[in-house]
Amino acid sequence: MKKTDLFLVVMAGGSGTRFWPKSTAGKPKQFLSFGKADSGSQRHLSLLEATLERFDHLVLPTQRLIVTTELLKSSVAAQAAGVTVLAEPQGRNTAPCIYWAAREVAAKNPQGVMLVMPSDHYIANQEKFVSTVMIAARWAAERDDLVALGVTPTRPETGYGYLKIAQHDKVQSSLTCYPVEQFIEKPNLQKAREFLESGNYLWNGGMFLWRAEVILAAFDRYMPEMKKAWDDSAGRVEVAYPKMTATSIDYGVMEKASQVVAFPLECGWDDLGSWTSLESLADSLGTRHDVGVVMNGEVVQVESQGNIVDAPGKLIALLGVKDMVVVQQGEVLLVADKSRVQDVRLVVEKVKKTHPHLI
Amino acid sequence: MKKTDLFLVVMAGGSGTRFWPKSTAGKPKQFLSFGKADSGSQRHLSLLEATLERFDHLVLPTQRLIVTTELLKSSVAAQAAGVTVLAEPQGRNTAPCIYWAAREVAAKNPQGVMLVMPSDHYIANQEKFVSTVMIAARWAAERDDLVALGVTPTRPETGYGYLKIAQHDKVQSSLTCYPVEQFIEKPNLQKAREFLESGNYLWNGGMFLWRAEVILAAFDRYMPEMKKAWDDSAGRVEVAYPKMTATSIDYGVMEKASQVVAFPLECGWDDLGSWTSLESLADSLGTRHDVGVVMNGEVVQVESQGNIVDAPGKLIALLGVKDMVVVQQGEVLLVADKSRVQDVRLVVEKVKKTHPHLI
Repeated sequence: MKKTDLFLVVMAGGSGTRFWPKSTAGKPKQFLSFGKADSGSQRHLSLLEATLERFDHLVLPTQRLIVTTELLKSSVAAQAAGVTVLAEPQGRNTAPCIYWAAREVAAKNPQGVMLVMPSDHYIANQEKFVSTVMIAARWAAERDDLVALGVTPTRPETGYGYLKIAQHDKVQSSLTCYPVEQFIEKPNLQKAREFLESGNYLWNGGMFLWRAEVILAAFDRYMPEMKKAWDDSAGRVEVAYPKMTATSIDYGVMEKASQVVAFPLECGWDDLGSWTSLESLADSLGTRHDVGVVMNGEVVQVESQGNIVDAPGKLIALLGVKDMVVVQQGEVLLVADKSRVQDVRLVVEKVKKTHPHLI
Repeated sequence: MKKTDLFLVVMAGGSGTRFWPKSTAGKPKQFLSFGKADSGSQRHLSLLEATLERFDHLVLPTQRLIVTTELLKSSVAAQAAGVTVLAEPQGRNTAPCIYWAAREVAAKNPQGVMLVMPSDHYIANQEKFVSTVMIAARWAAERDDLVALGVTPTRPETGYGYLKIAQHDKVQSSLTCYPVEQFIEKPNLQKAREFLESGNYLWNGGMFLWRAEVILAAFDRYMPEMKKAWDDSAGRVEVAYPKMTATSIDYGVMEKASQVVAFPLECGWDDLGSWTSLESLADSLGTRHDVGVVMNGEVVQVESQGNIVDAPGKLIALLGVKDMVVVQQGEVLLVADKSRVQDVRLVVEKVKKTHPHLI
């Protein structure tokens, strides 16, 4: 496999309101840094920058594509010098995004292996990540499989989808891969515990590898409307996009395809899906604190614990506060019960109506 | 009673950390306004200014004394043009403060009636307040009584001291007064309920009226060390003060004196003793809100109630937040469980050590 056979496709269209008010429409999660900003003068990489840096010795800058939105195009370009930026005319989930990227890659090199990566995930151990990616890329280069990176579960997480590995296999090594039997939506806690114990399940990290011609063939089989929309529009994206099915690659292709395998990934991965994600990452980020997790700001406290605090440049005084999220960003102060962080979107919807400039 | 017989003595030495971070050492409670600042362009009076304005038609500016600290002297002078400001060399509770003021008044007019008033209390109905004060002042001018203004209780409050009226009396009118049998410290809830039901108890509002010569005679009888300290220092306050007993006028004189009477006061009074005081005043201040009480700032909320919010110029988003105090002021953000507001001082003590400039 030559270096010119490897293409990085980074999906950076996320509008990320889950970390509001730290994230906003103009500065979604992929542009945020989750390092401890107050701890030193060094600027931390954004999640997008870290995603790109991770592939520095693997994929040439000229072999990189970032798919994003019109709104974010210039911000993305500023963080990714020399990289091709594709701006979707509208967000239509991951299937159209990946279809477009596959067409771009295939035009350059049909044998090209696409490494499809979200731009807003956290990975603690870069070396382990890269070595698994290299093994998986070689696999994808040499076989007609759709390859997923599945994260070996470390807890009965109910916030992720799962990949079910064939019953007789047990995930033992990240040096080999396992046929995927089923894509499973977010489970309840009991199921998540069963998944963890069985050893037959991996978290679906939304990271995929395949040759451009292989995924395009899968699209043609399971979503033939994509090729039709593309061809009918003579490759004019703004015409093709509205005709493409707005669905996820998981639902549109992966769940239906037969030749799907997964490589287990053990690299301290997290999708940073909500404020509470920061709890499992606290040790790795160095943000563990008596009161819970402190991302930014100084804290003085009395009998407070289990909280998540992010208020750059502020002194945060907590008195008898338990299991709360306290975030200060510009004009906005968010206080939320920790058990309700999945509902931050409800707050965001309200603020969108009353104070649209603060979203 | 001539107008020159009336003297207003305002005690403005409070260092007020109970409303921290809204109040600070340099700007204690008496300098704060508790009006709804965001609701209009009109500047609201501080508690000190409101205290002075209350007596505009009653006491001449030249007949007014404000006792405060060296630290606050210039701030007080800025809010009280033409008024004599006495700066205590050190805070030693109310007895030395009142002794000094009594000497000042007696030197001008021994028959002078002193209206001794805290500078940091809230009074909703100015007319009722003034009419009771006038009746009480006349009483004090004509008799050798120590007169207290006792607030008619409206709830079984455990945060105030009480005045016990003689058993055979029932408080019925604020046009007359009742002999005080006992000064009672803050009761527990059961006692407070009994007090409320019995009709024989008033809240001790720390507001007193007496002729200068009457209170000085009481000092000579119950705290003879005060006169000795004063005379030994030839009236040099910085010498006399350290020798004076640091105690309250209640404990040092009132509890021991025989001729103490109380006028019942019904004027929507509150001592603003903590953040939770703002709940009972919310209707009168116009700060009642779905989420509880909002003093300053705009609130967007989902399933939040029973909170007290004060964050000028901020959008405060509350998600599933119940019975919390959320305050933003400058660099400081305070989040406290509402049941713990009495312990704000514990936080303040810690911050004093780590961030003294923020206290």
